[in-house]
Amino acid sequence: MAQPTIVIIGAGFAGLNAAKALKHVPVNVLMIDQHNYHTFQPLLYQVATSGLDAGDVAHQVRATFHQQQNFRFQQGKVIGVDWEAREVVLEQDQRVAFDYLIVAAGAIYHDFGIPGVKEHGFFLKSLSEAVNIRSHILRQFERVNSNPELVADGALNFVIVGGGPTGVEMAGALAELFDIVLPKDFPEVDVFEARVYLVEMGDRLLSPYDPDLSQYTERVLRQRGINVRLNTAVKEVHAERVLLSDGSELATNTLIWAAGVRGHPLVDVLGVELTRGYRAAVAPDLSIPGHPEAFIVGDMSGVTDKDGNVYPQVAQVAIQQGKHAVKQIINQLKQRPTEPFSYRDLGSMATIGRSAGVAELSDMFLNLKFKGRLAWLAWLFLHLIYLVGHQSRFNVFANWVYNYFTFDRHARLITDMQPSPAELANKSH
Amino acid sequence: MAQPTIVIIGAGFAGLNAAKALKHVPVNVLMIDQHNYHTFQPLLYQVATSGLDAGDVAHQVRATFHQQQNFRFQQGKVIGVDWEAREVVLEQDQRVAFDYLIVAAGAIYHDFGIPGVKEHGFFLKSLSEAVNIRSHILRQFERVNSNPELVADGALNFVIVGGGPTGVEMAGALAELFDIVLPKDFPEVDVFEARVYLVEMGDRLLSPYDPDLSQYTERVLRQRGINVRLNTAVKEVHAERVLLSDGSELATNTLIWAAGVRGHPLVDVLGVELTRGYRAAVAPDLSIPGHPEAFIVGDMSGVTDKDGNVYPQVAQVAIQQGKHAVKQIINQLKQRPTEPFSYRDLGSMATIGRSAGVAELSDMFLNLKFKGRLAWLAWLFLHLIYLVGHQSRFNVFANWVYNYFTFDRHARLITDMQPSPAELANKSH
Repeated sequence: MAQPTIVIIGAGFAGLNAAKALKHVPVNVLMIDQHNYHTFQPLLYQVATSGLDAGDVAHQVRATFHQQQNFRFQQGKVIGVDWEAREVVLEQDQRVAFDYLIVAAGAIYHDFGIPGVKEHGFFLKSLSEAVNIRSHILRQFERVNSNPELVADGALNFVIVGGGPTGVEMAGALAELFDIVLPKDFPEVDVFEARVYLVEMGDRLLSPYDPDLSQYTERVLRQRGINVRLNTAVKEVHAERVLLSDGSELATNTLIWAAGVRGHPLVDVLGVELTRGYRAAVAPDLSIPGHPEAFIVGDMSGVTDKDGNVYPQVAQVAIQQGKHAVKQIINQLKQRPTEPFSYRDLGSMATIGRSAGVAELSDMFLNLKFKGRLAWLAWLFLHLIYLVGHQSRFNVFANWVYNYFTFDRHARLITDMQPSPAELANKSH
Repeated sequence: MAQPTIVIIGAGFAGLNAAKALKHVPVNVLMIDQHNYHTFQPLLYQVATSGLDAGDVAHQVRATFHQQQNFRFQQGKVIGVDWEAREVVLEQDQRVAFDYLIVAAGAIYHDFGIPGVKEHGFFLKSLSEAVNIRSHILRQFERVNSNPELVADGALNFVIVGGGPTGVEMAGALAELFDIVLPKDFPEVDVFEARVYLVEMGDRLLSPYDPDLSQYTERVLRQRGINVRLNTAVKEVHAERVLLSDGSELATNTLIWAAGVRGHPLVDVLGVELTRGYRAAVAPDLSIPGHPEAFIVGDMSGVTDKDGNVYPQVAQVAIQQGKHAVKQIINQLKQRPTEPFSYRDLGSMATIGRSAGVAELSDMFLNLKFKGRLAWLAWLFLHLIYLVGHQSRFNVFANWVYNYFTFDRHARLITDMQPSPAELANKSH
């Protein structure tokens, strides 16, 4: 067939939206991902805190595209691109030819070279990581239940590093789990001895938000018992303690690293220049300099706005970049010039736990910021809308209603998931 | 406290029902299980065939007993009993004292010494095994999608050994998955080349049932494309093929072993005589001969009926035995003689896939046997009733309704679960 083949690497928000945008374009689409499912990353923290089942936030890629005739999927791990041959190289030297390429492999944790993070930290970027955090947290309570002396060793200290949305949401959900759910499970454990620390290097939480909202977030978290440590960095992580920049030390078996991410290591082998956070310094139209047929989108992409700042690594940017890359491919197919990417910021929101959230909506007639129950409800609503798959949407909604009214979290199962080979490699390199 | 302590090993049907029966008895109850959840084994085959999420069939033990004041739980692996000291011995030489003991550790697969089963077979007794079967099956289709030549090597041949309820239900659900779900996922694979073999040593399926129902079951399965091989045993299992007793050989990467189970290996170290299937030859009141304070119930128990037959390893027997052991403990506490166990057979039922099932109800005014859609509905209804946890019941019901009307199975995720240490030991010993 004379139709060009567009290979998309990655089934995250960017890849998924790129593929969907190609639905009525006369091309062949081939998506490659190491997993056979899309992970709805914004809700991983709820999996990690027993609010949702793993299956609720993962949706099989093939199912998403049943109605799209020009779509194909291949499960596999991409290890590089052969630019000469215009082929994507997979493990075991499998090769897949492309005419156009969209790389959307996302991001992994970034440890900024801090010793011990890689070995002892927990991350919240993949389904198996979220499930394993959940299991690890619950296991600490089981351990203390059998041996109460472990509390003194920090078994019930949970340290979250990074005061961005992930860290804030994780801290809020964890406090809730400890306050309203686990005391019933562990009548013999003094669950109120459990401590959640939220460590942030900067001087406020949710720094991209309006300072009012940052203050509100901090106040709510402190009210809920979270030990917020601003202006504090992590210096070293050990299996049973963490050293902070103020010289203090926290005994803990659980360090959840939400302090930053870097472009997926695939970015290192594409022959593209890197910018801040190991993201690809792509051209304004998102193409790779020297490879106009290849685009890098989403968390891996280091395109800058008109002020020279890289865009935040959030779903909305990824979605818009995925669609933008498709438009540029269509432009090229029609022999038209490509256009630079510009981000339409619809705003951002985060939850801080039960009935509390913050939201900033922009780019509308008014710029709105609000907080509290309304922001929380808006967050719930929008995340349901963006969830992939009717069944997942229904399950998540039903679980939220159940959790809200019963003060329960049903998914308190200790079931470790095997990390993918790529995740294992990231842990050990 | 002067109250006696009753230790229950195992959170299956027998252990759970024993603990519940102790709710209003002035004793301390301590349940020990290697997992922190109860597994609803009768629905594991639906997890293995993508119909249900893992979380739907597992329910956290502690949550089940929130309302029971005298109940405590400990997650741990029991490795023996110190009868002198009246202590249960756990890994790392942890010890738990008991006055009365109820051992309900269940069963694991039994390979009858057939070479290769242990190394290459898949089993359906635990949550991780079910999730790993699902992932393995879907992975075969992904492999064939990348490399169609693997079909000739048997990548799409799925061999189920054992024509009892587990084998029949697994075969029916697998055929359904292949017929109505996977063709949409894999338009490039000729899914109709996938073959399900059901191998049974005896001369009919569901041998404990009325021959009419066995014939109906065989007819339905054959109509649905399943290759039923009666009077056929497995001689050897290899990674890529299986040898049958008739001299024939099937190329396959997937052998699901539903041919038989044996008492959990804990039974080997209790100092109790064993009977058929490595089950404990307990006294008629279910106590261990020489240890009137200790009872073995459920799949591990080898008590015989008045005709000298051991009871089937099904949920109803386990439930009734768990309750019976509790009654005998109460009898002993009240200095009354113990009573022999007798089974009130309420009947049995099995599904054969969509809208087809068989049921035999007994011990009522009439003995009833029926088949088809009515038996299927009765099966669905009864399993919902017996499921543990409101949330699970709701999720399972919602999923069934969704699956039925959409011809979809949403849980088609390739996500391997780490087996528990005990399961690993069983695989490698």
